[in-house]
Amino acid sequence: MVDIATRVWNHKWKIDPIVRSLIDTDFYKLLMCQSVFRNKRDVQVKFSLINRTKTIRLADLVDEAELREQLDHVRSLSLTRGESTWMRGNTFYGKRQMFTPDFMDWFENLRLPPYHLEKRDGQYELTFEGSWPEVMLWEIPALAILMELRSRAVLRDMGRFELQVLYARAMTKVWEKVELLRGVEGLRIADFGTRRRHSFLWQDWCVQALQEGLGDAFTGTSNCLIAKNRDMEAIGTNAHELPMVYAALADGDGALRQSPYDVLADWQAEHDGNLRIILPDTFGTPGFLNRAPDWLAGWTGIRIDSGDPATGAEEAIAWWTSRGEDPRAKLIIFSDGLNVEKILELHAQFQGRVRVSFGWGTMLTNDFIGLVPDDALAPFSLVCKAVEADGRATVKLSDNPNKAMGPVDEIARYKRVFGVGTQERVEVVV
Amino acid sequence: MVDIATRVWNHKWKIDPIVRSLIDTDFYKLLMCQSVFRNKRDVQVKFSLINRTKTIRLADLVDEAELREQLDHVRSLSLTRGESTWMRGNTFYGKRQMFTPDFMDWFENLRLPPYHLEKRDGQYELTFEGSWPEVMLWEIPALAILMELRSRAVLRDMGRFELQVLYARAMTKVWEKVELLRGVEGLRIADFGTRRRHSFLWQDWCVQALQEGLGDAFTGTSNCLIAKNRDMEAIGTNAHELPMVYAALADGDGALRQSPYDVLADWQAEHDGNLRIILPDTFGTPGFLNRAPDWLAGWTGIRIDSGDPATGAEEAIAWWTSRGEDPRAKLIIFSDGLNVEKILELHAQFQGRVRVSFGWGTMLTNDFIGLVPDDALAPFSLVCKAVEADGRATVKLSDNPNKAMGPVDEIARYKRVFGVGTQERVEVVV
Repeated sequence: MVDIATRVWNHKWKIDPIVRSLIDTDFYKLLMCQSVFRNKRDVQVKFSLINRTKTIRLADLVDEAELREQLDHVRSLSLTRGESTWMRGNTFYGKRQMFTPDFMDWFENLRLPPYHLEKRDGQYELTFEGSWPEVMLWEIPALAILMELRSRAVLRDMGRFELQVLYARAMTKVWEKVELLRGVEGLRIADFGTRRRHSFLWQDWCVQALQEGLGDAFTGTSNCLIAKNRDMEAIGTNAHELPMVYAALADGDGALRQSPYDVLADWQAEHDGNLRIILPDTFGTPGFLNRAPDWLAGWTGIRIDSGDPATGAEEAIAWWTSRGEDPRAKLIIFSDGLNVEKILELHAQFQGRVRVSFGWGTMLTNDFIGLVPDDALAPFSLVCKAVEADGRATVKLSDNPNKAMGPVDEIARYKRVFGVGTQERVEVVV
Repeated sequence: MVDIATRVWNHKWKIDPIVRSLIDTDFYKLLMCQSVFRNKRDVQVKFSLINRTKTIRLADLVDEAELREQLDHVRSLSLTRGESTWMRGNTFYGKRQMFTPDFMDWFENLRLPPYHLEKRDGQYELTFEGSWPEVMLWEIPALAILMELRSRAVLRDMGRFELQVLYARAMTKVWEKVELLRGVEGLRIADFGTRRRHSFLWQDWCVQALQEGLGDAFTGTSNCLIAKNRDMEAIGTNAHELPMVYAALADGDGALRQSPYDVLADWQAEHDGNLRIILPDTFGTPGFLNRAPDWLAGWTGIRIDSGDPATGAEEAIAWWTSRGEDPRAKLIIFSDGLNVEKILELHAQFQGRVRVSFGWGTMLTNDFIGLVPDDALAPFSLVCKAVEADGRATVKLSDNPNKAMGPVDEIARYKRVFGVGTQERVEVVV
């Protein structure tokens, strides 16, 4: 077991890269990357880092040279032989050869494309441009690097034992969550916390603690490197970037309205079973479900990632019922802003009515709330999104206007095309 | 830094001796040993382990074979070259060559004498017989071994992360104490926690945490091995065994009444300054002080180790005043059953009136209270005392009848000889 506090204290980071591997990323990124590689490999995209928590002035906290050093280090990475063997040989979601030989050939030769970094108003403008399957792989490392550099900046001047006690307290917090969750009948939780983790070592610790503490109720981690190293299941399906880019590429309102289903038609050609999970909220869940083709109702489940989660789950259940499907055979994955209380509440509310699963992110891998003065380690809302595709702006509406992004006129157009009315604003914490 | 939880989990104790060195003992044991070696080396003594907490059935908890293995390991130890160099070359209490060449020659060749072990009524009867300077060195290792074997028995079936969180919680408890104590003007605290420590590694951690957390307010440790390894001050003076054995050897009531002063006369011939600390409570503090010769009032301080500590301190102050000494130049060392609240209270009450110092034992190095079910790691009151000297029973009265020991008729005789009247009973926790 790694003594995190001592690593934190000893290294003073000089020789401690934050992202050590191209598979230190979310599993769904690799699945989506393969899908993009197959269907849209020549699309040119621009990804951009966006700090939704403006009060955290990242450019004041994080040294630019250190940030460049970490980003440059990621550009030096390529897939190792062991990583390639794992991707080629491992079983994912019960399936062998999830990653095709031609995708693996491409991935083995990949180096991540250049980045563009500037400071503006106390924030970093960090963007990545190039072909979609390459650029998309920057998202998770870029987020993890900024989150961890911020942690390091806060921890830098702490003493050795002060640090050990800080981690002791954080471990205790995680374990108190385990104690609240263990023994809850039928609970299923996976780690989705890579992007906003406190640090790599910390995520690795949290995942292992959940494995020991929750046993079979812990289903795996979205982090491929940890899944590989710890012999766990790699968990994840697909994300908003697919419908966002497909939508941006669509010519005209009709094609735009159809684009989210095109994404899933492509996905269905590649995946089955528990990988057929609908993410319905990109342009508003109710309209998406209303207009959905019947074949989508046959999919395994729905992931609820914005808006009030109970409302989203009720909408999903009602939709399945209306399409003649038995919700009890369906899977709902909650993945938005979860904490223990919300997990227990949603589990109690929906267990038995549907199959329920949780993708637990930031409050699993970065809950240092209350542990340092001024809460300087509290997590914040950092994202890295596709903002352009072949020169056209992307849009995300979601089920929470506070999570919407894109140019104002395009947001208005999308709302019109997708028939999105008034939405409830939900505070975005992480 | 040692990852204690992992060590605890990995080794399952097979190759992890509890006492690794003859100087893994209290500094005052070595000082007293030298004094005994000089003045009473041929006295034959019997030391015996006494578990004052009868509810802890040690023989049910601790495997006899494991106990023998640990005790046998101690008998295999001899002073290493580095340990000898440290004792011969280091400065203790500002003095070089605290340990004389003839004592060191003897100590370098020492192996501890045999032990005698039996089970009775769920307890271990563990005794040591032989010449005083040899047998006396069993006290601390015997206690530390039993305390740690009990810890190990409780921890044996815990999971890896469960253990890490247990230690995380214990670290947090220690650090909360540090946070309460740090910044208190003029505080001086030493570690006296070897004998009832949770484990060696844990004591080592606690001591280092106090050093970082309290800075100069942490004055050192009674544990010679840790003092050596961590380059700290070794702290300690003398203990009850000297007056207990001297008293047992005294012929007749007059010699008995005089014996505690004989101890200190011998001590004065060897030590000065901060080593001239009176431990007045062996046969009752008030009588001891009343009858004390004037030269004792010139000593540096008094250690208060039983009874109500504030009462003992007031008695000391009144005594110094009555002998024309300025209490503000004197040192009072509190060492009985301390916790943070008591330390802060006594410090506030006496700081400025005398010089105050604290020898913090069990609640520093073994506070796992509330951390496991049934409080199975809570410290308990285990002692290892001289019970016979040259075939005569020893007696200890102390300022608390609950700490008295010896045959009933001898206790009565000592009470008469030392003029001890009614004493307040104080619950003995550790």
